[in-house]
Amino acid sequence: MMETSTPTIAALQERVEAIFLRHGLSALQAGAVARVIVAGERDACKSHGIYRIEGTLRTVKAGKVNPKAVPMLDLNEGSAIVKVNANGGFANPAFELGVPALAERARKLGLAALVINDCTHFSALWSEVEAVTKEGLAALVMCPSYATVAPTGGIKPLLGTNPFAFGWPRPDGVPYVFDFATSVAARGELELYRRAGKLLPQGWAIDADGEPTNDPQAALAGAMLPFGGHKGSAIGTMIELLAGIMIGDLTSPEVLDYLGTTTLAPMHGELVIAFSPEAFSAGRAGDPFARAEMLFESIIGQGARLPSQRRFAARAKAEADGISLTAAELEHLDRLFEKGLEAIA
Amino acid sequence: MMETSTPTIAALQERVEAIFLRHGLSALQAGAVARVIVAGERDACKSHGIYRIEGTLRTVKAGKVNPKAVPMLDLNEGSAIVKVNANGGFANPAFELGVPALAERARKLGLAALVINDCTHFSALWSEVEAVTKEGLAALVMCPSYATVAPTGGIKPLLGTNPFAFGWPRPDGVPYVFDFATSVAARGELELYRRAGKLLPQGWAIDADGEPTNDPQAALAGAMLPFGGHKGSAIGTMIELLAGIMIGDLTSPEVLDYLGTTTLAPMHGELVIAFSPEAFSAGRAGDPFARAEMLFESIIGQGARLPSQRRFAARAKAEADGISLTAAELEHLDRLFEKGLEAIA
Repeated sequence: MMETSTPTIAALQERVEAIFLRHGLSALQAGAVARVIVAGERDACKSHGIYRIEGTLRTVKAGKVNPKAVPMLDLNEGSAIVKVNANGGFANPAFELGVPALAERARKLGLAALVINDCTHFSALWSEVEAVTKEGLAALVMCPSYATVAPTGGIKPLLGTNPFAFGWPRPDGVPYVFDFATSVAARGELELYRRAGKLLPQGWAIDADGEPTNDPQAALAGAMLPFGGHKGSAIGTMIELLAGIMIGDLTSPEVLDYLGTTTLAPMHGELVIAFSPEAFSAGRAGDPFARAEMLFESIIGQGARLPSQRRFAARAKAEADGISLTAAELEHLDRLFEKGLEAIA
Repeated sequence: MMETSTPTIAALQERVEAIFLRHGLSALQAGAVARVIVAGERDACKSHGIYRIEGTLRTVKAGKVNPKAVPMLDLNEGSAIVKVNANGGFANPAFELGVPALAERARKLGLAALVINDCTHFSALWSEVEAVTKEGLAALVMCPSYATVAPTGGIKPLLGTNPFAFGWPRPDGVPYVFDFATSVAARGELELYRRAGKLLPQGWAIDADGEPTNDPQAALAGAMLPFGGHKGSAIGTMIELLAGIMIGDLTSPEVLDYLGTTTLAPMHGELVIAFSPEAFSAGRAGDPFARAEMLFESIIGQGARLPSQRRFAARAKAEADGISLTAAELEHLDRLFEKGLEAIA
């Protein structure tokens, strides 16, 4: 492999895929998982980049994911719901298998859902949202995670950080995309505060007795809080209901019971809803895509930002100049390739 | 009419309906609008109760709603989208017309949407969510309103207070329901602070120069802020896209342009999405309704509350003892019946 500090996207894909292939993943699983990891690195979204290789391998080693699983598509003809059973593998190949069927169904019916069951999920949802917007469809994606967030007014972890993501296709260039945790902060941020010896901002967490705390250690032993008070708590609960219970898959407390830890990738399901703007707007005045651009102009025109712009800027740079990696990161990739998890221990 | 301080729900319905019938609404419009107003009063949700009669009449008088409109159902066979054109009337009869078709479509396809176009909307969304949960379906409902909220990082009103509501059917009794503005506060709350001569809490609003303000008067001339920072701002934007632009109806800035004021009921569209838990969970282990009850137990069991409980308690009381109204309120209803808007001037 060529040693460079700015590998192309394709070169990094090959390299990450090789690590997974050598350490137990089938070609199907390795390719799809590597694609989302490389997308994270490409977008300078380091928390979802090559840093995730280790967690992926640990989840395989713990026997909590089937690294050679073959996902199965159930077209569920005559309905608006397409289903993919990941068969205990990673969500990513299951998602890739389901998207064309989801897009076709949404174009036909105007509205359709993709349900992924029995998958191990760890990638950011924006990559999935973007795959649907590439089909000219709007997308709403959500999934539970592990019980680490107390409902507003409560004292114990119950909800997950339950990401909620949405995308709208834009004719020229990148889509409108947001993707956020329904907790105030991601769990990884608490860990970063702990390592840095810094106090948490007000309102992020409670301790094991349910009392507000600024101490990251106490927060990790307690619970995080939902964003936006009771409103975020309600959305987090909705995600447990729709993307856990309704689709017959695990809720965040059940995921934590199953794994016994928050250090492995969560096993659960996922719900993707796709909307055809053409179908919804049929017979009405105005082109929805052109009108959406006017709305975005009004947002930008008053000095506000559209979400995901930092990622898109990083992406443009990576596409032009390659992905910037430090020598230490490249060496780490080499060690992961050679030794797998032993590279870390 | 019988003078009592606790009319039954049916008696208040008759009374409110009579006001609307006498002051220009057709029977179809009067009945449906009165039902949501009485539901608000029944649930002690005063901001959506008989207080709304005046605004309804004002919107009629201003010629911004057709008080005798006949909504038209477009079954849109072969798709997952049922449409109702309110034909410039109130949303409520259009919604009532669309719900049975929405429920049938959702049961058939697993997932379906009801689009209401060209309607004047002023009722809380919870009453609509509950109508869908009565059909055994989960529901997600949203609509734009008027441009009164600045996007995070912005300085001018652009988004509406854009309500976002969700419901999950519960086998025994009232559903799980939330319904909230995606702004920190409702616009009416700013007005209440102004009248009381009180300062606004931090983070509610900005003034006309885009600077944070605690002064309700300055806030009313400036803009409200979204709940939960950039996350709430993103959800508010999503609602403009899905329930305004995508369905070929007005966005919040367009509504404000059309009305020229925030004192009349907004004219726009509305999006209702219905999910069949049976269809989504088919072939999976566990009954989704029973599992949801376990989740609710876990929330309540740690001292947190489910949303809407205050409303449901008031409802139970109203169903048993009638709706409690002051003598002044009853007199006001009489005057509204006799004189319409002149009762206010």
